[in-house]
Amino acid sequence: MTDAATNMRLKLPIICFVLQIILIILFGVLVQYDHETDAKEWHNQTHPDYDNDFYYRYASFQDVHVMIFIGFGFLMTFLQRYGFSSVGFNFLIAAFALQWATLMQGFFHGMHGGKIHIGVESMINADFCTGSVLISFGAVLGKTSPVQLLVMALFEVVLFAVNEFILLTALGARDAGGSMTIHTFGAYFGLMVTRVLYRPNLDKSKHKNSSVYHSDLFAMIGTIYLWMFWPSFNSAITAHGDDQHRTAMNTYYSLAACTLATYGMSAITAHDGKLDMVHIQNAALAGGVAAGTAGEMMLTPFGSMIVGFLAGVISVLGYKYLQPILEEKLKIQDTCGVHNLHGMPGVLGAIVGAVTSAFATKDIYGNGLGDVFPDVASGEIDASFQGVRQAISLAVTLGMALLGGLIVGFILKLPIFGAPPDTICFEDSVYWEVPGEEESHDEQLTTVRTEESEKLNC
Amino acid sequence: MTDAATNMRLKLPIICFVLQIILIILFGVLVQYDHETDAKEWHNQTHPDYDNDFYYRYASFQDVHVMIFIGFGFLMTFLQRYGFSSVGFNFLIAAFALQWATLMQGFFHGMHGGKIHIGVESMINADFCTGSVLISFGAVLGKTSPVQLLVMALFEVVLFAVNEFILLTALGARDAGGSMTIHTFGAYFGLMVTRVLYRPNLDKSKHKNSSVYHSDLFAMIGTIYLWMFWPSFNSAITAHGDDQHRTAMNTYYSLAACTLATYGMSAITAHDGKLDMVHIQNAALAGGVAAGTAGEMMLTPFGSMIVGFLAGVISVLGYKYLQPILEEKLKIQDTCGVHNLHGMPGVLGAIVGAVTSAFATKDIYGNGLGDVFPDVASGEIDASFQGVRQAISLAVTLGMALLGGLIVGFILKLPIFGAPPDTICFEDSVYWEVPGEEESHDEQLTTVRTEESEKLNC
Amino acid sequence: MTDAATNMRLKLPIICFVLQIILIILFGVLVQYDHETDAKEWHNQTHPDYDNDFYYRYASFQDVHVMIFIGFGFLMTFLQRYGFSSVGFNFLIAAFALQWATLMQGFFHGMHGGKIHIGVESMINADFCTGSVLISFGAVLGKTSPVQLLVMALFEVVLFAVNEFILLTALGARDAGGSMTIHTFGAYFGLMVTRVLYRPNLDKSKHKNSSVYHSDLFAMIGTIYLWMFWPSFNSAITAHGDDQHRTAMNTYYSLAACTLATYGMSAITAHDGKLDMVHIQNAALAGGVAAGTAGEMMLTPFGSMIVGFLAGVISVLGYKYLQPILEEKLKIQDTCGVHNLHGMPGVLGAIVGAVTSAFATKDIYGNGLGDVFPDVASGEIDASFQGVRQAISLAVTLGMALLGGLIVGFILKLPIFGAPPDTICFEDSVYWEVPGEEESHDEQLTTVRTEESEKLNC
Repeated sequence: MTDAATNMRLKLPIICFVLQIILIILFGVLVQYDHETDAKEWHNQTHPDYDNDFYYRYASFQDVHVMIFIGFGFLMTFLQRYGFSSVGFNFLIAAFALQWATLMQGFFHGMHGGKIHIGVESMINADFCTGSVLISFGAVLGKTSPVQLLVMALFEVVLFAVNEFILLTALGARDAGGSMTIHTFGAYFGLMVTRVLYRPNLDKSKHKNSSVYHSDLFAMIGTIYLWMFWPSFNSAITAHGDDQHRTAMNTYYSLAACTLATYGMSAITAHDGKLDMVHIQNAALAGGVAAGTAGEMMLTPFGSMIVGFLAGVISVLGYKYLQPILEEKLKIQDTCGVHNLHGMPGVLGAIVGAVTSAFATKDIYGNGLGDVFPDVASGEIDASFQGVRQAISLAVTLGMALLGGLIVGFILKLPIFGAPPDTICFEDSVYWEVPGEEESHDEQLTTVRTEESEKLNC
Repeated sequence: MTDAATNMRLKLPIICFVLQIILIILFGVLVQYDHETDAKEWHNQTHPDYDNDFYYRYASFQDVHVMIFIGFGFLMTFLQRYGFSSVGFNFLIAAFALQWATLMQGFFHGMHGGKIHIGVESMINADFCTGSVLISFGAVLGKTSPVQLLVMALFEVVLFAVNEFILLTALGARDAGGSMTIHTFGAYFGLMVTRVLYRPNLDKSKHKNSSVYHSDLFAMIGTIYLWMFWPSFNSAITAHGDDQHRTAMNTYYSLAACTLATYGMSAITAHDGKLDMVHIQNAALAGGVAAGTAGEMMLTPFGSMIVGFLAGVISVLGYKYLQPILEEKLKIQDTCGVHNLHGMPGVLGAIVGAVTSAFATKDIYGNGLGDVFPDVASGEIDASFQGVRQAISLAVTLGMALLGGLIVGFILKLPIFGAPPDTICFEDSVYWEVPGEEESHDEQLTTVRTEESEKLNC
Repeated sequence: MTDAATNMRLKLPIICFVLQIILIILFGVLVQYDHETDAKEWHNQTHPDYDNDFYYRYASFQDVHVMIFIGFGFLMTFLQRYGFSSVGFNFLIAAFALQWATLMQGFFHGMHGGKIHIGVESMINADFCTGSVLISFGAVLGKTSPVQLLVMALFEVVLFAVNEFILLTALGARDAGGSMTIHTFGAYFGLMVTRVLYRPNLDKSKHKNSSVYHSDLFAMIGTIYLWMFWPSFNSAITAHGDDQHRTAMNTYYSLAACTLATYGMSAITAHDGKLDMVHIQNAALAGGVAAGTAGEMMLTPFGSMIVGFLAGVISVLGYKYLQPILEEKLKIQDTCGVHNLHGMPGVLGAIVGAVTSAFATKDIYGNGLGDVFPDVASGEIDASFQGVRQAISLAVTLGMALLGGLIVGFILKLPIFGAPPDTICFEDSVYWEVPGEEESHDEQLTTVRTEESEKLNC
């Protein structure tokens, strides 16, 4: 396993140092504190300290941060010998992507006199973009080197920012929790990358591509954190006041309904009526994904629960029936099943968002209409056209993701990034110094017994 | 282990789908956004966004949420082969109970024109009610099917809401952190259920009813999260300002003192002067339980520490001496020892609350008296009568819990819910597809050695 | 392992109860609610509830709390058979230290009419002081009894409070995130203690002084939580508004840059180009330590990233090259490598803070200068002298830590505290009842095979 091709001694340091030094230079040239983090700017005006956006968004930011680093990181530790890589590569590419996303999103969201202004909202947005990259990571998990992952993140962040700009700025779509921008984009991008990187002999690593008892428990840490903090995720950048409040609550009920649907579907579809950990770890989260666009709207708890319920049902069916077909027929080897957790529920969320938008009225939203649909409130467009915008946005996202994934997939195929051979996928020891086993009582016992049996023979 | 009786293929889907669909219908008919989550209502008046209760309670809500899903879930993973069920059934029944509790508590807390109004405070209350159900789950852990647990939750939530209504509304008691409503109720309810479900041959599963090294570490994740966030739990629904602040601080000191008492008591009582993980995982939390009623009062840090210290001592003594007696004499098989962690410390907390209430004066509380004791501040009653109210509330809670547990226990005995036989309690593989063992170095070594010893013989 | 010397049956209960009872008495005599937690005081004035500091700092407090109990606790679980002690002793000494620190810091920070006033800010400060003790714990991990640890905490908290008083009050230094007061102090104190406690025959426990696969994953839980919440740590007690906001953001970028540096350095220095978990678990955090002093200043994201990058590089080099030298030449057995994670990055952070202070101008900070450098803003001193103050503070801290560690080390050598012999260091079973192994499939298989091979022979 000290194959020269996968040796990271030069490749990984070079890419890490080069990327980080470029980031530092670009930050030095382009980035400034915004008016809420700059000492002079903030104190230029008279306003109470509690007006600072820090107090409205930092707690949400930290919840999102936990989802990115603990949630995604541990969700992927289900593989028996890929825990170091799951948490560790997640950590590495997230630390890179959040810096790079600050620049890319800052560039597209509008510069201020040639400078990118940053504060807690840009930090949340950077984490969101990182989330999208981590979804794609889920599709290729176990089959890529850390260098490939950094290269993928490098390109995906740019494409994410472009797509986000088209949707939110050019098209005027709403997508606070990112059903489209984050989940649909990340999933279909990753699926296309893994399609291009198709490994016909992956079954040689089949025995590693499964969980053991404790690895499933580690993965549940990731699941539960994602589930708990999803209300904060969807509400992190909505307008202050009722909007943040409502979005969090809609997501909470969507997830709760999704969870019961998941357990029911898992028992009905799985072998012998037993629950399947893969479903629980993943499908129970689909309700959060599906509430990503419409969560800030007047979806009502009732509507949220229906959406969550459907998302759970679709997601389990995807794991059970669709994923094997995708692998066999379309040659899409989707390690974590991101199509079932982020892809289909993301599309569902986009559709729900389009429909809910189309029925928005002043009668329902009152003077709060402008917070959610500024163009409808201003009379510039009517609600049904907002629905059309949302639908177009979904199509654009799918197109961008599939085309982007195609190109980036071929870039990642270049034989210089240290991808592991088919025989040692899903295996930490390719890229990590892995400790020996604990000196176990079993082994001691065995030794004694074997010695005894040897004595017997002599 | 594919026993027809425990097969969940039909039972679990039916109950999950039926319950969830009923919930969705009831939410559609009965539930509305409150004035802080409804776009129109919130924007009807002129007020700054920071007046929205979201900014006063959502961070507390998320801490409580972590306690419910990570805290309770992982605390129960100490069993060697019941981790999937501990985290997974905790997840399932919590996702159900929080929806059902929204309806029940909304019904009893007062409808608005036939509608239940919901927002962050109702979300916290729903999580609180769920906590009570999870305490009862601790008593029956390992001996019940997921269907039984959902049925238990269905009834317990109703009884919880009735009891809470009697205490807080009818009797005018104070119980912000739920020493009575949550802990005492949940514990004695669960103890009575497990008494009714008594299994004379449970010792056939004895070898599974214990921990292994890593399962104890997973359980410590639960313990530490419960410990850290208990100040948020007790302060989550107290009045804004000094009340939330004081409650959090009282709980913090109660827990700290409880922890030192627990370590001391564990070393003095346990075998050979060694610390017992069961005590550390559980008794160190008793200080949070015992500060549940008086935490919002002017208990002082000094008083809080005395309460926490006593709670820790009582709890360890309970685990060491009382629990075996309860099991042998009263036939109460209390898997997690909820009597020691929630039962006795809950009663202690109720008593401390009654005494502290009885000594409340305008001299101590100043103009803040109305926040904690509105009826005393308005002159309607005097403080000693508030103490009497608190004491009556404890008695009512014990009665409701024991009677309710008795009835629900008999319902759960119906032989249609798929309870596991005595021989395979505390075992995940009854209800879960459990992965195989990791291909270990030990086994490979053994194979080699055995082959060698065979060669030697030939 | 039931050696009388290490038996805790009397020693641990005595020290726990004596310390806790003294704490309770001192709290009863000396401690009062401050004007934000006292019902009467708070309601004496007219102010809106959102003026209460609870809403500005409690969320930060909880993040810090998680770092202390989960972060430090699990970071140290990397040892294969010391997980109970790592989490458990961390829990015990933290629960003691935070109470004791409340008193000591309250005493030095200024009494109010003979009373110590407490609220959320004192809770954060107590957690900070506790953090310093836990850093020292990292240096002696595996080689000390819980009684020794409590004695160490008893003295270290006093010295911490004295040093903090000299720096922040007497010298007027700034150190919001504690590069000096917490990290430098805790690290060099611990290093000196472990030097005095030098064990020449520690290699007898060498086989226990390493990780196994799952223990490294548990440690990653600690790492990731420390990493995520470090922005909250550094900003927890800075001034409201732009200061908290800026500090959090500076720390976020410092950590991100540090992480890429760590991965690069780990691959370039480690065996075979493989990543070393020790580096990832520790060095990736050095960016938070190094931003502890200058984080609240106008360091800019650019400056923060440079600092983080350097910290990561230094830290990995320390683990790889310096630590073995320290152990062989200077006889410093630093179990967790706190010199690399807290020592050197702490000194770096102090230097960065001194330099950044020296260049502070009204032009950069505007009217916000007074928040960060009150004495410079008032014209009492000029900025370069503030830099001198910072540099002197570093020297004082190093002196206090080394001298204090020397004295406390000798106190801990007294043969009455139950230290473990050299042969059973890094072993939970000395102080804990450790459960047996899970009945494994391996063992069953082995038994079968050995029996078969025996049959063959007969």
